[in-house]
Amino acid sequence: MDALRHVKPVVRGLRAYTLQARPATVKLDQNENPFDLPEDFKREVVARALARDWARYPEFDPTELCAALARHWGWRADGVLAGNGSNELIEALLVVTVGDGTPVLIPEPTFTLYGLLSQVLGGRLVRVPLGPGLEYDADALSRARREHEAPVTIVCSPNNPTGSVLALDAVSRLCDEADGLVVLDEAYHEFSSQDAVPLLARHPNLVVLRTFSKAGALAGLRLGALLASPELVREVNKARLPYNVNFFSQTAALCALERRSLLDERVARLVALREALIARLREQGGLRVYPTAANFVLVELEAAEPKAVYEALYARGVLVRDVSSYPRLSRCLRFSVGSEEENEALLGALREVLAPVEAR
Amino acid sequence: MDALRHVKPVVRGLRAYTLQARPATVKLDQNENPFDLPEDFKREVVARALARDWARYPEFDPTELCAALARHWGWRADGVLAGNGSNELIEALLVVTVGDGTPVLIPEPTFTLYGLLSQVLGGRLVRVPLGPGLEYDADALSRARREHEAPVTIVCSPNNPTGSVLALDAVSRLCDEADGLVVLDEAYHEFSSQDAVPLLARHPNLVVLRTFSKAGALAGLRLGALLASPELVREVNKARLPYNVNFFSQTAALCALERRSLLDERVARLVALREALIARLREQGGLRVYPTAANFVLVELEAAEPKAVYEALYARGVLVRDVSSYPRLSRCLRFSVGSEEENEALLGALREVLAPVEAR
Repeated sequence: MDALRHVKPVVRGLRAYTLQARPATVKLDQNENPFDLPEDFKREVVARALARDWARYPEFDPTELCAALARHWGWRADGVLAGNGSNELIEALLVVTVGDGTPVLIPEPTFTLYGLLSQVLGGRLVRVPLGPGLEYDADALSRARREHEAPVTIVCSPNNPTGSVLALDAVSRLCDEADGLVVLDEAYHEFSSQDAVPLLARHPNLVVLRTFSKAGALAGLRLGALLASPELVREVNKARLPYNVNFFSQTAALCALERRSLLDERVARLVALREALIARLREQGGLRVYPTAANFVLVELEAAEPKAVYEALYARGVLVRDVSSYPRLSRCLRFSVGSEEENEALLGALREVLAPVEAR
Repeated sequence: MDALRHVKPVVRGLRAYTLQARPATVKLDQNENPFDLPEDFKREVVARALARDWARYPEFDPTELCAALARHWGWRADGVLAGNGSNELIEALLVVTVGDGTPVLIPEPTFTLYGLLSQVLGGRLVRVPLGPGLEYDADALSRARREHEAPVTIVCSPNNPTGSVLALDAVSRLCDEADGLVVLDEAYHEFSSQDAVPLLARHPNLVVLRTFSKAGALAGLRLGALLASPELVREVNKARLPYNVNFFSQTAALCALERRSLLDERVARLVALREALIARLREQGGLRVYPTAANFVLVELEAAEPKAVYEALYARGVLVRDVSSYPRLSRCLRFSVGSEEENEALLGALREVLAPVEAR
């Protein structure tokens, strides 16, 4: 008896996406917000939670939350879906569009989950390489979309793990050229100067994804959103699970939206910290710093081995992300932008690790 | 330009699963636990939450929680997946097993989501009717499994919305007869005298689903689990989203597992309330009461129209579930077992609604 033979062959051939949890004093591996929400914010959320009956389901559709998200981002409430992280909504979108052999176009390199979920659903991945400097190649994306008549194109902008941005006019052009869906994952958009939501009114084939896990400082609570035309949202909603956003995360997100200035201040602070970190990294020899519009920086090591540097940084209490197994990034590491102290710790550890022995 | 043409035709043809939210004093429509968790329990969860950095992701895999769940139910930790409600894990299981045309066997009537998700994924539904008294027909399930060589059979036991139970020896027999997966959704098992987890060791093709939304009184926080062989869990895990269980729900579930006696007491109380409600419903004329092993009761109205009775009860402040659109249940309503006062309110309202005008 072999119960596993009923698992789809394509799934059996895949490796699960995983991340080893390693404790660290300075944690710069997951692009988290280094600034926890203030105590009075947390106490407000908790007070509302205590006043609620925990045994009762959250709303079937979180209508109050979707309305607040719509106001926050400037889109219509019937064009917003809330999810348990934006990953859940990427999945719902792929579930309603991807079947056996459906071409799904993704940049390379990009966030691992797009390819994994597409393949699990039977989709055929079409990978479009970034340009020589890891910038988006809009023409290559256009050509591939036409050639494969791809029903779904996923673009992460700013792109994880490179930080690259696809300019809004290029997004618009992609949407105009063919009616296949263009899914723009804007998980990091607050750190860039771009916002694709205003394009939604003109492009019924555009889907924008957002999250509260990065700028929103709510990674622990999982809150994401999908914005698109109401017609498309209605279809994606058929694969969204009922009661998918628990009441506590809804409450926290609603409280966050009531304090927009708190969010804005922190974004400005992180952008300043990023620019300072980039300037200091550029002074450090032995690595190339890629341009980034996100809250992380991709660096390419000139001579040192990424795995060895990763371990040497970890030995000094600094956990970064080893992205050397990604295509094109065999010499790269990714650093989240941390607090001033965390960035100093990273820079100090890097200096030690990268300095030639003779120069010490 | 028609962006919607990229949505799979099968999805466009489906109606979304939905539930109209209606406020009510006596809410008996979602099989929730009528007893909120005690204040000191909630304060303990909240204290742990306040001590945590909300900006940091939960664990990639919730290992501490899975280990605690495994101890609680008596199974191995590497055979447990935790999810944002058990719905999410049903979906993950179907995603790794169901492609275009895959036969998925489900009872009829049963929980709506199994059929909806299977169809969204391209599966072909094989519906096996319950017996004449809405009891499970184990022989019919066996025959259909053999005939369709179904890779996946989903059995909800106790069944929602009927309350029917598939006996453990019948579950065992189904698992022995063919190596297709048998998914036993035991969302309501605490209210029955059955527990299928001990069967897992003997049946590598058995999958058991559990939830904290019913007996666990945590519907607001969404916590479900899947138990199966470690080999099968490893495959389902490829479709589970990372960080799927937020830290607050994890904390609440861990606290609940530390207070097992609290759970047990409440289950005993609800079972007693159910038996009292059934006895009183049997005294009430004009309806047939189906046997149930869950925290709800299905009744068939002899003469009155279900929709009219549903509305008349609602007009009296009592919200029940109108299940008359389910196959075989065109004359039925479903009542959750509430607190003593809620059940009294239901019985009083029913008496008024069902009494012939002349008898008042």
